[in-house]
Amino acid sequence: MSDCIFCKVAAGELPSHKVYEDDLVMAFLDIQGWTKGHTLIIPKGHYANMLETPDELVAKITVLAKDLANNYKTTLHAKGFYFMAAGVDIPHFHYHVIPYYDDANVEFRPTKQPKDQDFAQVAADLRND
Amino acid sequence: MSDCIFCKVAAGELPSHKVYEDDLVMAFLDIQGWTKGHTLIIPKGHYANMLETPDELVAKITVLAKDLANNYKTTLHAKGFYFMAAGVDIPHFHYHVIPYYDDANVEFRPTKQPKDQDFAQVAADLRND
Repeated sequence: MSDCIFCKVAAGELPSHKVYEDDLVMAFLDIQGWTKGHTLIIPKGHYANMLETPDELVAKITVLAKDLANNYKTTLHAKGFYFMAAGVDIPHFHYHVIPYYDDANVEFRPTKQPKDQDFAQVAADLRND
Repeated sequence: MSDCIFCKVAAGELPSHKVYEDDLVMAFLDIQGWTKGHTLIIPKGHYANMLETPDELVAKITVLAKDLANNYKTTLHAKGFYFMAAGVDIPHFHYHVIPYYDDANVEFRPTKQPKDQDFAQVAADLRND
């Protein structure tokens, strides 16, 4: 999409701090990142979110996330990683690789408490029992 | 591992609200979940985290996450999804599928602000320039 910021990054029309690129995907530092090495992986093609991205590309991006994390473990001495896709902000699928360190300067928490739910019923509905 | 809670779930030694199962993986509701339909996908074999899980299995689990989310979109009328792996609690790889709804009762935020960083230098280090 011509007005999509990540399409422009993929096309090189906007600058990025690139860490990986091939014909199908690109990885670059998130300049609004939460930790050192916080990286976004995007498909070069435009897909609004993970649900709309072809399986092969979802698989490729996730395995790349794992490979980058293995690299960052050595290079950045990251203690561990969060891997996350949300897609609530920019509607071009992007997968986060978020290293964390000994000072654990990132943590995710829900902003609201969950509601009571009937787990057995929900599971049955989802299994189509 | 004999004392691993998710190995016991995979083996059926602990009960779970199962939504999917095959020879390699299992998906069940997170009983500490944040939203209705919050699901964990695990490999049946024991791998401490995503970095230690074989690529094929990481790919399979991520694509299953996408498939479940597509199902939940219809079944639960979820508005969107967070997909996340962290592995900071139970050391058996588990992948979260977290639906969110119109009342947006979940949101992730870092608990601390990021530090200033030299993005160009970090990217160069990670590319092994």
